[in-house]
Amino acid sequence: MSELEKTIESLKYDEKGLIPVIVVDSETKRVVMMAYMNATSLLETVRTGKTHFWSRSRQKYWMKGEQSGHTQDVRNIFIDCDSDTVLIEATQHEAACHEGYFSCFFRRLTDSGKWEIVDEKVFDPSDVYKKTE
Amino acid sequence: MSELEKTIESLKYDEKGLIPVIVVDSETKRVVMMAYMNATSLLETVRTGKTHFWSRSRQKYWMKGEQSGHTQDVRNIFIDCDSDTVLIEATQHEAACHEGYFSCFFRRLTDSGKWEIVDEKVFDPSDVYKKTE
Repeated sequence: MSELEKTIESLKYDEKGLIPVIVVDSETKRVVMMAYMNATSLLETVRTGKTHFWSRSRQKYWMKGEQSGHTQDVRNIFIDCDSDTVLIEATQHEAACHEGYFSCFFRRLTDSGKWEIVDEKVFDPSDVYKKTE
Repeated sequence: MSELEKTIESLKYDEKGLIPVIVVDSETKRVVMMAYMNATSLLETVRTGKTHFWSRSRQKYWMKGEQSGHTQDVRNIFIDCDSDTVLIEATQHEAACHEGYFSCFFRRLTDSGKWEIVDEKVFDPSDVYKKTE
């Protein structure tokens, strides 16, 4: 087992073998998404330089951007003090959110207790995902 | 039930009633930590303007900074597209990490597959936590 494999194995995964991964765009410094990896997808992320996740709803591996082309080029990988959360700095191509926004966090809580959209769409999801949805 | 309570109730919590919360320092834009809230602690966070979490290991509520004084003043609260992850922008007083670093993400993966510390300590944990540890 390589040093990298040992390092990845030694992280604290949850009871399903998953670890939450925050992705920050390296240029804008914005948090663009949060998703889950297991040891295999984290290793694949390091080896390929593109983020690979484990989908809890679809129970399968997915590379970010495999459908949309909006991939993430990994720049830096950080671990937190408890070794149970990963932070990745990446170059986000086009946009991270499948709803067409640069960041998945495009809604802010207002004083009246509702969500308001505070960002502009950068692409039309019906164009990007039309072949498979 | 108020509009705010309805909004908070309608988020997607996991099977333990928890939702992951990413905290970004509003001044430096750095991700400083990730922890979990339930509906009650999120409501308390909105009402008090200070972040309140649910500790999975201690099974109790805690206000960030209750021991250290390193509280977080909430500036903005965002929700992601799937309504299952919260992002909070806050003014981080002193530092977020109990190990003495501004951010909990102070270790970066090197090319040789090991973690290296890439940040400077801003306080000595043995001073800050000496009364209770």
